[in-house]
Amino acid sequence: MDALARAGTLTSPLRDGDMLAAIDLGSNSFHMVVASYTLGQLRIVDRLRETVRLAEGLDGKGGLSADVRQRALTCLARFGQRIREIPPHRVRALATNTVRLLASPQSFLVPAETALGHGIEVISGREEARLIYLGVAHAQRPRPGSLRLVIDIGGGSTECIIGRGFQAVERESLQVGCIATTRRFFGNGRLSRRKWSEAVIEVGAEFQQFANTYRALGWNEAIGASGTNKAIGEICAAMKLTKGAVTAEALPQVRERLLRAGHIDDIDLPGLSADRRSIIAGGIVVLEAAFAAFGLVRMAVSKAAMREGVLYDMLGRGGEHDPREASILALTQRYGIDVAQAARVETTAIRLFEQVAPAWRLDHDDLLMLAWAARLHEVGLAIAHSQYQVHGAYVIEHSDIAGFSRQEQQFLAALVRTHRRRIHKSAFDALPDRLLDAARRSAALLRIAALLHRARDADEIPRLELEADGMRLTLRLERRWLEMRPLLRADLESEPTAIAALGIQFEIAVD
Amino acid sequence: MDALARAGTLTSPLRDGDMLAAIDLGSNSFHMVVASYTLGQLRIVDRLRETVRLAEGLDGKGGLSADVRQRALTCLARFGQRIREIPPHRVRALATNTVRLLASPQSFLVPAETALGHGIEVISGREEARLIYLGVAHAQRPRPGSLRLVIDIGGGSTECIIGRGFQAVERESLQVGCIATTRRFFGNGRLSRRKWSEAVIEVGAEFQQFANTYRALGWNEAIGASGTNKAIGEICAAMKLTKGAVTAEALPQVRERLLRAGHIDDIDLPGLSADRRSIIAGGIVVLEAAFAAFGLVRMAVSKAAMREGVLYDMLGRGGEHDPREASILALTQRYGIDVAQAARVETTAIRLFEQVAPAWRLDHDDLLMLAWAARLHEVGLAIAHSQYQVHGAYVIEHSDIAGFSRQEQQFLAALVRTHRRRIHKSAFDALPDRLLDAARRSAALLRIAALLHRARDADEIPRLELEADGMRLTLRLERRWLEMRPLLRADLESEPTAIAALGIQFEIAVD
Repeated sequence: MDALARAGTLTSPLRDGDMLAAIDLGSNSFHMVVASYTLGQLRIVDRLRETVRLAEGLDGKGGLSADVRQRALTCLARFGQRIREIPPHRVRALATNTVRLLASPQSFLVPAETALGHGIEVISGREEARLIYLGVAHAQRPRPGSLRLVIDIGGGSTECIIGRGFQAVERESLQVGCIATTRRFFGNGRLSRRKWSEAVIEVGAEFQQFANTYRALGWNEAIGASGTNKAIGEICAAMKLTKGAVTAEALPQVRERLLRAGHIDDIDLPGLSADRRSIIAGGIVVLEAAFAAFGLVRMAVSKAAMREGVLYDMLGRGGEHDPREASILALTQRYGIDVAQAARVETTAIRLFEQVAPAWRLDHDDLLMLAWAARLHEVGLAIAHSQYQVHGAYVIEHSDIAGFSRQEQQFLAALVRTHRRRIHKSAFDALPDRLLDAARRSAALLRIAALLHRARDADEIPRLELEADGMRLTLRLERRWLEMRPLLRADLESEPTAIAALGIQFEIAVD
Repeated sequence: MDALARAGTLTSPLRDGDMLAAIDLGSNSFHMVVASYTLGQLRIVDRLRETVRLAEGLDGKGGLSADVRQRALTCLARFGQRIREIPPHRVRALATNTVRLLASPQSFLVPAETALGHGIEVISGREEARLIYLGVAHAQRPRPGSLRLVIDIGGGSTECIIGRGFQAVERESLQVGCIATTRRFFGNGRLSRRKWSEAVIEVGAEFQQFANTYRALGWNEAIGASGTNKAIGEICAAMKLTKGAVTAEALPQVRERLLRAGHIDDIDLPGLSADRRSIIAGGIVVLEAAFAAFGLVRMAVSKAAMREGVLYDMLGRGGEHDPREASILALTQRYGIDVAQAARVETTAIRLFEQVAPAWRLDHDDLLMLAWAARLHEVGLAIAHSQYQVHGAYVIEHSDIAGFSRQEQQFLAALVRTHRRRIHKSAFDALPDRLLDAARRSAALLRIAALLHRARDADEIPRLELEADGMRLTLRLERRWLEMRPLLRADLESEPTAIAALGIQFEIAVD
C-alpha cells in the first residue's frame, strides 16, 4: 500500500444522490450531461447540446474568429447556469482538438472559464480516445474477453480505439475530422469525384500509420460513436440500406447520392438534419477512409460519446480506483524509478502537506498531485543524471498519461521541474493563473521533502513541523538530529534563497 | 544479425602497424598519446602533456579568457604537427568539462580544430567516466568477477565509476575538480581550517547523492586515476606514510601539513611538483570528501587515465565490437522500439546510402550513424505518438549513451528530428559546420527510407534506385508497384517540398 492510501485519503468521494456534470467543448458541438449518483449507478438527468462549430472559427494561424468565440462564450454562460448548484469538484469541463490547435489557448480559456464559472481542462487526443471508449463501454456493455474497435469522428479529430472490457488497449487520435476535412477538400462547396478520391487517399494515409498494428490485434465488433457516425447510420436507415448500422455496401451508395448533389448546399440525403448538411461530406470521407484502412464490413453505431466517459471517469477520480493511479504506476515501472526513495519522499511530502493544507487552502486534489509528483520526481534519471529534473518534466509534460488532462500533466511537470537546483520561474508558464498558487506551494513542499531525503537512507525524521503563515513557511527540525547531518545542514542553508523564487519566505528553526 | 552486419560493413578497421592517437583536452592539462597497433595489442609510442589550465580561463559566465585560449591553441598546434601522418579516422580528440561549461563551445572549438587540424568532440561526464574506467582496466587488469571503484579527480570534474572486468557498471560525473574547488574555497590563496571544513562538507554533498547506491553495490578495491591522485600518492610516499597508495590514515596528515602553510604560495609538500602547487589544495579536499563519502580505507593509484581508454575504445569503434552497438540495443529495449519496422527502414536506408555515398562523399562513419538513426527513429513513440520525432530527438540528445560523443548524439538526434513532418532548419543548429553536409544528406536518406515503409508491412521494394548529382537527388521506382500504393504515392508527392528545406532538390521518377 502506498503512502497516499496509508494517509487515509483514498476514500470514495461520492454519496448517494450527488449530482455530477460533464461538459465537452467539442470542435463541432458543445455538450453537457448532468447525472445523479444513485445506488452506485449514474442516472442521466439532463442533456444540453449546442452547435457552436468552434472549429469553423480557426483561422489557420491558431487564431479564433470573434463571432465563433462569442458563440462559444454565450453557450458556456448558459451551461454555467445549469451547473451552479453542483459542487465544483463534481463538474469536469474538457476541451479537445480545436482548443489544442489554438496558438494561445489561455486567451480563449480565461474568458470561457469566467462564462462557465468553472475551470476548463484541455485533454490530449489519446486521453479523449480513452474517455470515448469508456463512454461507449458503459452504454453497450462489452462481452467478456471480446475486443472492440471504436471510431469517433469529431469536428477536428478522429479517435480510434481498440478495447477489451472497460479498458482501452490501443488509442490513436488523428488530425482529421468532419469540419476540417470538409473545409480542406470542399472549401468552395463543390463536390467533385476527383476531389473526393484525393480526400479519401490523403485521409487514408493518416489511418495507414497504425492500421496494420490494429488489424494484427483484431477485433470482434466495430462501433462508431458520436454525432457524425450516428448521422451516417441514420442516413443508411432512411435510405433503407441497413437498420441503422453502417456497412461496406451501404457507404458507397450514400457517397454516390451525396456526390450527385454536386454542391454542399444541394446535399439531399434522407435522414440528415439540416445543421449537419454543411459538414457531412468530410465525415463520410473520413469514414470511407476508415472502412478501407481497417477492412471493415459492418460498424454498429452508438449514441454514447466522450461526455459519458467523463462522467464514469469521475466516479473513479479521487477514489480507490482512480484511473490516474494505474498510469503513475506504469510510468514508475517503464522508467525504472527507485520506488523506495520515491515512497520516502512521498510520505514526508504528505506529512508536510497535512500541516499546512488548511492555512494554504490546499485541497484533496492538490494532495493527489503532490503525492504523484513525489512518486515521479526522479523519472528523468532514466534519461540522464545531469539536469534530471528537466528531463523528468519533459517526459511528464509530453507523455500520453491516461486519465490526466494537459493542465494536470503540466502541474506535475512544474513540480518535478522545480524540485531541485535553481527554480526557473518559467517552469510555471504553462499553468493557468487559477492553479499558480497551489502549484508554487506544492512545489515548495516537494522540494523540502526531496531535500530531507537526499541521503537516500531509511532514517526516520524524528521531528518535522511545518507552519505556513501567509507566504511565510517555517520548518522546525530537532537540533540533535540535524547536527549529526552536516551535509543536510549545508543543503538547507541555501534553500531559503532557492524557495524565495516561489514567492515564499522559507525559514528553518532548529531546537 | 542486423542490417548493418548483413551489409558486410562491420569488419575490424585496424591492421598491424597502424598508428592511433588520442588527444584529451582536459581542464588542467592537454594530453596526447600515440600508439601502434601491433599483433592485436596497443603499444604506446609517444606521450605529450602540456599544462594548459583551461579551467583557469573560465570567467563564470561561460566565457574563456584570451590568454588561456591562446595557450590552448598553441598547444593544439604543436599536437597537430605530431598527428599529421596519422589518418584522421584513427585520431580522436576529446574535450571534457571546461568545454562543456562554455556558453558557446563552437567559438572555441572552431579555431581549436583548425589549430589541431582535426575535429574535436565534446563528451559528457558519464562518457568520460566510461573511458577512464576502460583506461584503468587495461593498465591494471581486474581480477575476474571482482568489483572496482575508480575515482578520477580532474581539473573541473570528478568521475566515480564502479566496474567489473572491462565494463563500467555505475558511472557518475560531479561538477567538482581540483581547479574549480581551489578557486571556489581558496580563491584568495589563504588556507584556513574553517574554509577547509566548509569545502569538504559542500563537496561531500555532491558525493552523497550516490554514495549510498555505490556502497550498497560495494567494491573489492579502489583505484585513483590521473594526475591529482597520482600526485597525492607521491606526497604520501615522500612523507613516508605509504608506499604510493593513499590511505585514510595518511590523508589527514597530508592535509595538516598543507594547512600549516597557511597560504597556497607557501605550500611545501614533499614530492609535489611545482606546477601542481597552485591546484593541489582543491584536489585534496575532493579526495578527503570522497574518502568520507565512500568510507575508503585505502586507494591504490594508477597512472592510466581517459586518454588510454580512448585508444582502447577506438579498437572497437567501427568494428564488430563497437561499444556503441550495445548502447543502441539498450535504448531499443528500454523504449520498446518495434524492431521489425526499424530493421526494414535500416535496410532500405543502407540500400539508398550505398548508391549515393560516392557522389555525396559519405564515409563509413556516416553509414554507421545512418544505420543507428534508423534503428532509433521511432524511439519517441514511447513518450507520445504526436510529434514523436521531437520526443525521440530529445531522448537521443539528452540521454547518457555510452560510447557516443555529444556531437554524435546531436547528429543522430538531428536525423531523428527531421525524419518526418516539416523539417525545421533549427534541427541542425547544434552541429558543427564540418558535419552539416553529411547530416543533411543522411537526413534525406532516412526520410525517404522511413516514408517508403510507412505502411509498416513486410513488402519488398522491387526496384529502388537513387542517384545523387550535386544537390539533386533522383529516386526511381517501378510504376506498376507504386500504382498499387496510392497512399505512398500521395506521401511522395509532398516530399520534394519537405526535402527542399535540406537544400536538396528531390525528384521522383516512375517508369
